[in-house]
Amino acid sequence: MRALMIGFGNVGRTIARMLTTEISSFPALRRLDLKPVGIITRSRGSLIDDQGVDFEKALTCIEDHGGFPDSNASFSTMTGEEAARTLDYDVLVELSTLNISRRGEPAASHIRTALARGKHAVSANKGPVAFCYGEMKDLSKKHGGKFLFETTVMDGAPVFNLVRETMKGCVVQSVDGIFNSTTNYILDRMEQGISLEEAVREAQKIGVAEADPSHDLEGWDPAAKTAALANVLMEGSITPLDVDRTGITGLTMEQVRQAVEDKEKYKLICRAWRENGTVRASVKPEKVPLSHHYATVSGGGAVLRICTDVMGPVLVTQEDPSLYDTAYGVLDDLLTLQLQ
Amino acid sequence: MRALMIGFGNVGRTIARMLTTEISSFPALRRLDLKPVGIITRSRGSLIDDQGVDFEKALTCIEDHGGFPDSNASFSTMTGEEAARTLDYDVLVELSTLNISRRGEPAASHIRTALARGKHAVSANKGPVAFCYGEMKDLSKKHGGKFLFETTVMDGAPVFNLVRETMKGCVVQSVDGIFNSTTNYILDRMEQGISLEEAVREAQKIGVAEADPSHDLEGWDPAAKTAALANVLMEGSITPLDVDRTGITGLTMEQVRQAVEDKEKYKLICRAWRENGTVRASVKPEKVPLSHHYATVSGGGAVLRICTDVMGPVLVTQEDPSLYDTAYGVLDDLLTLQLQ
Repeated sequence: MRALMIGFGNVGRTIARMLTTEISSFPALRRLDLKPVGIITRSRGSLIDDQGVDFEKALTCIEDHGGFPDSNASFSTMTGEEAARTLDYDVLVELSTLNISRRGEPAASHIRTALARGKHAVSANKGPVAFCYGEMKDLSKKHGGKFLFETTVMDGAPVFNLVRETMKGCVVQSVDGIFNSTTNYILDRMEQGISLEEAVREAQKIGVAEADPSHDLEGWDPAAKTAALANVLMEGSITPLDVDRTGITGLTMEQVRQAVEDKEKYKLICRAWRENGTVRASVKPEKVPLSHHYATVSGGGAVLRICTDVMGPVLVTQEDPSLYDTAYGVLDDLLTLQLQ
Repeated sequence: MRALMIGFGNVGRTIARMLTTEISSFPALRRLDLKPVGIITRSRGSLIDDQGVDFEKALTCIEDHGGFPDSNASFSTMTGEEAARTLDYDVLVELSTLNISRRGEPAASHIRTALARGKHAVSANKGPVAFCYGEMKDLSKKHGGKFLFETTVMDGAPVFNLVRETMKGCVVQSVDGIFNSTTNYILDRMEQGISLEEAVREAQKIGVAEADPSHDLEGWDPAAKTAALANVLMEGSITPLDVDRTGITGLTMEQVRQAVEDKEKYKLICRAWRENGTVRASVKPEKVPLSHHYATVSGGGAVLRICTDVMGPVLVTQEDPSLYDTAYGVLDDLLTLQLQ
């Protein structure tokens, strides 16, 4: 499969390593036949080669020089949008990060362009799913390319693929869960007697929180994920801006510790449910009893509970995810496209 | 799809009800197009009709008369094996219960016969998967029919379909979990100060345990499920007899209550793992800390943890299953066959 990769940060580089230098550790990924015909970055240059960019050389370039040098024969200054519009590829792989204030752009436009050309698109960026799923679905239907985005919620742990492939005879009535590892980690630390500010600094130090942590602390990341779930699994039509959203910045260490005294834990709980013919969603800190499964989801873990019309609730829990989990979510979508 | 149903107990009747009188509650099941050309029971007579047996009338018959009367125009005394060998059907649906001492027979033979004729087979009976998966897989490959059995472990909660459809690029290294609701319920009651014997009687009264509870108490049911998981997800070649198996009959109420004092809980934990190039499995009571997810799986719930070469552990948990969950596991497999 000829792939156009937009973005070559942590996830893109992990994918490149898994498929080259580390492939012997992942035998079941050998059957994925992926030829990157373009790797586009915003500020590190781009590589374009109709015969296939060499993943290993691209990795070395980025690691040794911090970018693709214009001395490289495949060097290009093409933007993501130009590449999406003009290159010859089977699947566009969008690996940029969510921009809430730009409502998922420019990633959404890249995917729109690919789908309008009848190409497939795989997104690790939540924006296009959270803001424009209905539009993407229509484009996919009209032009025949598929739009997949497994890794946007709980990384490679099956969520969207799970419902699509294994719960075909069910109607999803509601979902809830814990989808944001940064706030989950911080709440854990606050229970241990560390202030919110200190826990944030600590999380930044070990790479769990970003330089600007507000995206997580104020609940934008889980709100985008909840909107994506509501739109895809329940045919809702909401954006992250429609989610009733409260972050964890209003919580004090004292409150968090008092909850534990009372045999409860604060968790940032996401919910989507049906109400009067529409789908609504919320993200807010809630107290759960210590005997509840959610209380046992610690650190970087995540959990999704799916309630349907047919079965008792089905839960998917993710333990100790790493970048490999995120990369796998993309690779699983690519395998789905290759094997269809 | 023309279906030959073998067995018409609780699961078969629930399927029949879901697809007829209750279909308005399950809109996504409307797309399943199922025509039962035969319903075979061991002791209640059988119905065979090439134009399709009427599910509603079959239900009424069983409910009003306890069986199919020989006055019914479709009445037959054909056995499951004869029906599997001679009738014209697309899929054989095996709904009988596991017989450990007969190593999964006669269910295994029915499925063998169907697969050898190039027909599909869906099994709610664990036996054929636990005892003969390798053979069934070969027959399926050779003659083109598919063999599916989602409901045999954790009912309709995705387990086999999950790995097959959504973890295609992973190699499963080990699995563990809690798969037997009867013992899980009994251990819960023992924690509350009820003796094993009393808890068993109580479980029998509410239909959670069978008249002969040894199948569950001695771990045969979870051993069969663990063998199935080992063989299907890890390419093992073990039978339930190879599982290192300890039931819960050796546990006293005092031990169970002492564990809770120590902030632990006894659970009947199933495991399969790779060792020296083969797959091994065990079922035995183990103590888990109260803060562990498994400690929060109560009553009829179940959980499976899947460890792979690529990702952190992925867990599937089932809450409050009912007969609808079991029936759905079969219906999901039928949808898979219809939509393939």
